[in-house]
Amino acid sequence: MARQVADAMWAKDLASQALGLQLQQVGQGHARFTMTVRPEHCNGFGVLHGGVLATLADTAFAFACNSSNALTLATGFDIDILRSAHAGDALSARADCRHQGGQNGLYDVTITRGEDTIAHFRGRSQRLKGRKVVEEI
Amino acid sequence: MARQVADAMWAKDLASQALGLQLQQVGQGHARFTMTVRPEHCNGFGVLHGGVLATLADTAFAFACNSSNALTLATGFDIDILRSAHAGDALSARADCRHQGGQNGLYDVTITRGEDTIAHFRGRSQRLKGRKVVEEI
Amino acid sequence: MARQVADAMWAKDLASQALGLQLQQVGQGHARFTMTVRPEHCNGFGVLHGGVLATLADTAFAFACNSSNALTLATGFDIDILRSAHAGDALSARADCRHQGGQNGLYDVTITRGEDTIAHFRGRSQRLKGRKVVEEI
Amino acid sequence: MARQVADAMWAKDLASQALGLQLQQVGQGHARFTMTVRPEHCNGFGVLHGGVLATLADTAFAFACNSSNALTLATGFDIDILRSAHAGDALSARADCRHQGGQNGLYDVTITRGEDTIAHFRGRSQRLKGRKVVEEI
Repeated sequence: MARQVADAMWAKDLASQALGLQLQQVGQGHARFTMTVRPEHCNGFGVLHGGVLATLADTAFAFACNSSNALTLATGFDIDILRSAHAGDALSARADCRHQGGQNGLYDVTITRGEDTIAHFRGRSQRLKGRKVVEEI
Repeated sequence: MARQVADAMWAKDLASQALGLQLQQVGQGHARFTMTVRPEHCNGFGVLHGGVLATLADTAFAFACNSSNALTLATGFDIDILRSAHAGDALSARADCRHQGGQNGLYDVTITRGEDTIAHFRGRSQRLKGRKVVEEI
Repeated sequence: MARQVADAMWAKDLASQALGLQLQQVGQGHARFTMTVRPEHCNGFGVLHGGVLATLADTAFAFACNSSNALTLATGFDIDILRSAHAGDALSARADCRHQGGQNGLYDVTITRGEDTIAHFRGRSQRLKGRKVVEEI
Repeated sequence: MARQVADAMWAKDLASQALGLQLQQVGQGHARFTMTVRPEHCNGFGVLHGGVLATLADTAFAFACNSSNALTLATGFDIDILRSAHAGDALSARADCRHQGGQNGLYDVTITRGEDTIAHFRGRSQRLKGRKVVEEI
């Protein structure tokens, strides 16, 4: 089911497509995306823009928290940036469910470049009661 | 000086340019950017991607915390999303300094759509000792 | 009404009483508490324990977000500590509503010592549907 | 060395002593404390005060981030509260280093009651250059 939901989300997720994100893996409560940093992802100092880094993490978070087909929106997130990334870097973002109550969820995303951790992200989500991502499943 | 620094940052900030952000105002410790939400800023649910929203805020934050020409990087931020935005919405992000010590800074960004607040963002920054954004000023 | 709710909360709030907090003001969406730092509020470095500082802010937050008598719990908070406080310092924590939707709320608390800001706190709250703090009002 | 540092911190940590915290384990980059919730730890709704919960986590964080004897202060933290705790509950807070650069650190603390997770806490720390917790080691 997680894959069907992910495919439906991905088809319309123009923001993630525009950044060149790639879905590598998705399952119940988790998801992993990768991206290669391009010059147009960088800020005025030539390092990966913090917002683009957050977008990578937020996409992994969204696919993880919607993986069981209960329509879920992010209410917010925190990101701690440990290292700068640069054009050419290959990044991976792995999202895992830390808590999923009836409505509220908490998901951690770790962004890595090879063995280095680039950032830790923590997302908060809220399910819309009775709403599904894909109606027919 | 804030304007000179902002112009230098903007010239190289390909990520902010790609999203169509527009610098409206910058001064000592504050900055304001606007953007009009486009379909390619939206996620799989047809609402503005949280990461793109964070990018708008993060850019305003970056221009505010570098406004006195001391080279400053974000170490992280939090965002709380209060309302969804959609394609066609005109958004404004206003960043203001809450604290600037010798090295550590705290900046609040409020994102609005007309009279509605869309999100509150709080950024943490750290200055690189002895480094300037623009060397000659 | 805010005062009646506050009085009912205060009567049972043994944790806030034990720390010597004092309610100075409460109204629709806001509250202000003060405390004088005592040696037993301090940590192993002789500075005010971050958790005690957070308790002061969290109490102000709780009284602000319950001020309209809709039973409300904190789902979490962030605190940024700008300056250390010490035994003998007189602190004030002012909580203000930033957003209150049907269920979710966002409140900012600023902790000051005279003209210095000691910390910024941001609390997230959630109302329990149909529940009141004080049944008879 | 972690144990010597912890003993020196504990001897003066009146706030943690007053709450009845107990150090169970400490080592390079980690620490674990326990507490039994008492009525005087609870708020006006009869549940464990969020600030007291944060104090438990913040103490574990402080002992973990100072464990290598480099004097380190918290610059802030986030807490997400997943479940309420009540008088009589036995809680455990385990702090682990997620990142320790030359100066900045990031530590995660998980608070549990038996098999249930009560809260996730993320602390940010900063080392004071050249300062030790215990001078003679």
